[in-house]
Amino acid sequence: MTRFNDWRDQVFDIIYKTDTKAGKAFDVLLILSILLSVGAVMLDSIERINVRHGYWLTGVEWFFTIVFTIEYVTRIWVNPRPFKYIFSFYGLVDLLSIVPTYLALMIPGTNEFLVIRLLRVLRIFRVLRLSTYIHQANFLLSALNASRQKITVFLFFVLTLATIFGAVMYVIEGPDNGFTSIPKSIYWAIVTMTTVGYGDISPHTSIGQAIASVVMIMGYSIIAVPTGIFTAELANTLRGEKALELKCSGCGLRDHRVGARYCYDCGAKL
Amino acid sequence: MTRFNDWRDQVFDIIYKTDTKAGKAFDVLLILSILLSVGAVMLDSIERINVRHGYWLTGVEWFFTIVFTIEYVTRIWVNPRPFKYIFSFYGLVDLLSIVPTYLALMIPGTNEFLVIRLLRVLRIFRVLRLSTYIHQANFLLSALNASRQKITVFLFFVLTLATIFGAVMYVIEGPDNGFTSIPKSIYWAIVTMTTVGYGDISPHTSIGQAIASVVMIMGYSIIAVPTGIFTAELANTLRGEKALELKCSGCGLRDHRVGARYCYDCGAKL
Amino acid sequence: MTRFNDWRDQVFDIIYKTDTKAGKAFDVLLILSILLSVGAVMLDSIERINVRHGYWLTGVEWFFTIVFTIEYVTRIWVNPRPFKYIFSFYGLVDLLSIVPTYLALMIPGTNEFLVIRLLRVLRIFRVLRLSTYIHQANFLLSALNASRQKITVFLFFVLTLATIFGAVMYVIEGPDNGFTSIPKSIYWAIVTMTTVGYGDISPHTSIGQAIASVVMIMGYSIIAVPTGIFTAELANTLRGEKALELKCSGCGLRDHRVGARYCYDCGAKL
Amino acid sequence: MTRFNDWRDQVFDIIYKTDTKAGKAFDVLLILSILLSVGAVMLDSIERINVRHGYWLTGVEWFFTIVFTIEYVTRIWVNPRPFKYIFSFYGLVDLLSIVPTYLALMIPGTNEFLVIRLLRVLRIFRVLRLSTYIHQANFLLSALNASRQKITVFLFFVLTLATIFGAVMYVIEGPDNGFTSIPKSIYWAIVTMTTVGYGDISPHTSIGQAIASVVMIMGYSIIAVPTGIFTAELANTLRGEKALELKCSGCGLRDHRVGARYCYDCGAKL
Repeated sequence: MTRFNDWRDQVFDIIYKTDTKAGKAFDVLLILSILLSVGAVMLDSIERINVRHGYWLTGVEWFFTIVFTIEYVTRIWVNPRPFKYIFSFYGLVDLLSIVPTYLALMIPGTNEFLVIRLLRVLRIFRVLRLSTYIHQANFLLSALNASRQKITVFLFFVLTLATIFGAVMYVIEGPDNGFTSIPKSIYWAIVTMTTVGYGDISPHTSIGQAIASVVMIMGYSIIAVPTGIFTAELANTLRGEKALELKCSGCGLRDHRVGARYCYDCGAKL
Repeated sequence: MTRFNDWRDQVFDIIYKTDTKAGKAFDVLLILSILLSVGAVMLDSIERINVRHGYWLTGVEWFFTIVFTIEYVTRIWVNPRPFKYIFSFYGLVDLLSIVPTYLALMIPGTNEFLVIRLLRVLRIFRVLRLSTYIHQANFLLSALNASRQKITVFLFFVLTLATIFGAVMYVIEGPDNGFTSIPKSIYWAIVTMTTVGYGDISPHTSIGQAIASVVMIMGYSIIAVPTGIFTAELANTLRGEKALELKCSGCGLRDHRVGARYCYDCGAKL
Repeated sequence: MTRFNDWRDQVFDIIYKTDTKAGKAFDVLLILSILLSVGAVMLDSIERINVRHGYWLTGVEWFFTIVFTIEYVTRIWVNPRPFKYIFSFYGLVDLLSIVPTYLALMIPGTNEFLVIRLLRVLRIFRVLRLSTYIHQANFLLSALNASRQKITVFLFFVLTLATIFGAVMYVIEGPDNGFTSIPKSIYWAIVTMTTVGYGDISPHTSIGQAIASVVMIMGYSIIAVPTGIFTAELANTLRGEKALELKCSGCGLRDHRVGARYCYDCGAKL
Repeated sequence: MTRFNDWRDQVFDIIYKTDTKAGKAFDVLLILSILLSVGAVMLDSIERINVRHGYWLTGVEWFFTIVFTIEYVTRIWVNPRPFKYIFSFYGLVDLLSIVPTYLALMIPGTNEFLVIRLLRVLRIFRVLRLSTYIHQANFLLSALNASRQKITVFLFFVLTLATIFGAVMYVIEGPDNGFTSIPKSIYWAIVTMTTVGYGDISPHTSIGQAIASVVMIMGYSIIAVPTGIFTAELANTLRGEKALELKCSGCGLRDHRVGARYCYDCGAKL
């Protein structure tokens, strides 16, 4: 039994870790498989290719689904705490990466959701030992987190504005000019405020164009708000991270210049 | 009479406050009613739904209008200072939330303005005790307020530019290419400067496209101005907030310069 | 002769200054005239209005042109240094505000340029004694000025990129897909990079759409550059302006907190 | 032989340097030639002009190609370290500037790539002795470089999001509404997230428009991320530059913290 456990530990190391040669090879192979299978799904969706090579592409899809199913089962089996893995972010992504193929047997057309497999590629950061990249990602996330509440207030404000302007435009322009319902007019307001501007719906009356101008200038200006929020937080985090690492033993002050050897205030050696 | 006043006080507490169980329940019920009634107005505007269920949706609309009217009258009646409420932001929104239904009896088509009811949902911040959210909203507003004058100057500049470029394009492109009048050309200039770009009007002559390119690059670049203004103000406000954590032991003042050794106001050592 | 000079001085005060009652009244009247005449030019350009009221609007236009001509001549006549006025910004704008009407007698269609009159409204800042607004405008201009060189480099870079991507798309998409020449393809590249996206020209081939995606993501990202430049400069100017006014008499340090009474570093009274 | 080497040295000074009169004249002439030849390529691509003047423009193109070929060969010949030049940025650009004309003899249509010649104009910075501009460009590049990793993480995130939203919209909207394949849907997602919004493909179903709204608001908000990253880095770099003005009298180091009293490196009083 110990020998069996030993073997299970070895598999665990290969699958979950990257510090051995076999572990790294496994992860590189895995990422290549993911990219290939996502590529196959994409190609399969192009009609011209589907007609000619659809048969082979379905084969590729099934091949990778079976491989990933075996990998998923093995991951659960060799993990000493399987439930922690199953309900982790990667565990859920791994499950969602194989379900669509099986689901497509019952409900046709769902296999396009296989592109969710792309999320598995996030493992690439681990493989390439890009710890600095993960650090940077965490850095961005912590700045986003610090501005979470401000951004919620901002989005609430934008959506309320879009709803009211949508209703106003529905009354002014009416169904004849493409504003066929309030929800559709709200869609127009969002298209306009975010400065996307498809042009599938656009105001035709003079007063409608005047109000649209107000909406555009508003949308154009309030983009300053999320940008300002995030930039200010990021600048704070950036300054804090660089400056707070050092502390003067003499006077206890922090906020020294990066690379300083003497305290800027009392002159003591750092 | 005292017992009657007592009863009025109790109703006041339920309607206006959220610290009792009944008061909180009232506010949650109110918000649900608002969302339901706004949803009904939206659905009513979709023709396919209006044809089938229009009768019921009009009923729902009238039901909520009557409920909100009773609520509005009660709010005035139980408030010891009714006029302060009537002319407050919430008082006006509450009034505007019931008027359109009655107005629609005389002028058809105005009931779409009922979506203004959505503004009543702003009360949600009070109900959920999201005082931090209100704090953040105030924070953003104070930064916006500090940059008010700069933004006025900026908007004046943008509108002058839009008018002049609009007139130039009207002369160059002319009515044959969709620039049928100066106001319409100004509308085009705003659509372009804000980078919305519907494409309902677009330049066709070579010289028109060259000038449009200048307008686009201008619009693309000057978005830096409101963003810069707001970010700089926000960073300032944010820094102020962080500086507030240090407190003088002598006079109790906060908001010292980072790295300060003496209180800026009483001169005591920090 | 002295009495005549006296009279000329009085007219000078009324026209050029705003500190007397008559001077202020003159400027308010002037701004109203400008707005009215610009409004008339705009209305005249709308065909439906032109057909019905064109005769009257042409009269209004000529009336204001003659009034502004008299004003322009008077300005030169009462000014002790007329040439300084003629070649100043306001002098040139005043001249350009009357020329188009006369020019339209020879070259029809030029009178739309009368909207340049709008620039005269910039005088509004002087009339309303909005010195704070002028201060803010100067503030923004000084930050823009400080980042002038960086923005020149940026624009040079954007235009080079637009030219190269335009030529590449011309080769790939070709005249059949709307990319009829390199200049037109450069126009498309600018429309795309600035995220305006009219949709009058858009890629149809797969490889064209892939390259367009690169252009879009590039344009979307590099807007960070002018914004970053301007924000950083503005933050600097803002901080500098607030902090550099105060200097400690004891240790000579600047950069004190706004409103400080004691030096943060040596504790001396400021 | 020495006299020959002398002559080669002189040619080297004229071609590669700008501090002599002849060297400056050569570079000005070179830039004019580049702009003329790029202009000729652009004009040649306009059909109306090509039909009438195509013969002459081809002549101009060949003339400049031969001139630039001679220049290129001379540059290699007079350079004491020719391989360093050949594989430098300018060396490669110079080669790419002449190849397309010769290539067009075998593969027609490639001569449009001659616009790559425009990159040669980058030499203008050297000619006009715009060392401040180069300084500013380096400044921007160093800030971009410092945020390289953060921007890589950001782009990876944006592309993953575009792929997943593209697949979702392909399933929801389907080929009938223009979403003919997953790659095309990804193209739509990028057009939408970057707020370009051509409108060549746009959602028609209600649920598709709802998801598109989410994509738009996302795209509109996350532009804050590259802007924030770059602004924060730029502000840091800028602050560093300003701090460089203070100089320690002991060790001569600059870059002290604003408000510092002691040198951070040698501890001497500032």
